[in-house]
Amino acid sequence: MTKSYVFDVKMTCGGCSGAVSRALGKMEGLQSYEVDLEKQSVVVIPATATYDEVYEKIKKTGKEIRSGEEKESEAAPEHAAPAEVVA
Amino acid sequence: MTKSYVFDVKMTCGGCSGAVSRALGKMEGLQSYEVDLEKQSVVVIPATATYDEVYEKIKKTGKEIRSGEEKESEAAPEHAAPAEVVA
Repeated sequence: MTKSYVFDVKMTCGGCSGAVSRALGKMEGLQSYEVDLEKQSVVVIPATATYDEVYEKIKKTGKEIRSGEEKESEAAPEHAAPAEVVA
Repeated sequence: MTKSYVFDVKMTCGGCSGAVSRALGKMEGLQSYEVDLEKQSVVVIPATATYDEVYEKIKKTGKEIRSGEEKESEAAPEHAAPAEVVA
């Protein structure tokens, strides 16, 4: 399972999204992050950082966080065959 | 003397300046602050907050601080007469 934190953040220009990117770029404990101005989304794949830590980091940018959630998704890409299938 | 901290901050839209305002609004130890998008300036009149504390607060917004300085200015408005002048 891959964990991700997904936030809906109000960003109105490239300066806004750049600011969020810079704030996350200085943060430790993240595997990766993606800030999308058009989608108004910030998606973080954590290494060790908790949801609350990332939430606080974004909040400190002064941007309005409309909503946020923690998601779990299958890590295996391309629908790997179930373990019980034997050739 | 009135102390003020003056910063040149890169802000490109109302969302940028609003974010800096919100960040400062949550900060304690300030007497007042003014964020001006057009002038690209953030002027803070501190109560107890130090220059470094305010600098760090703005930095956490992810905005680029081009420059900053601490200023001292005469508190007396409208050029009050010097004390040694006697009527």
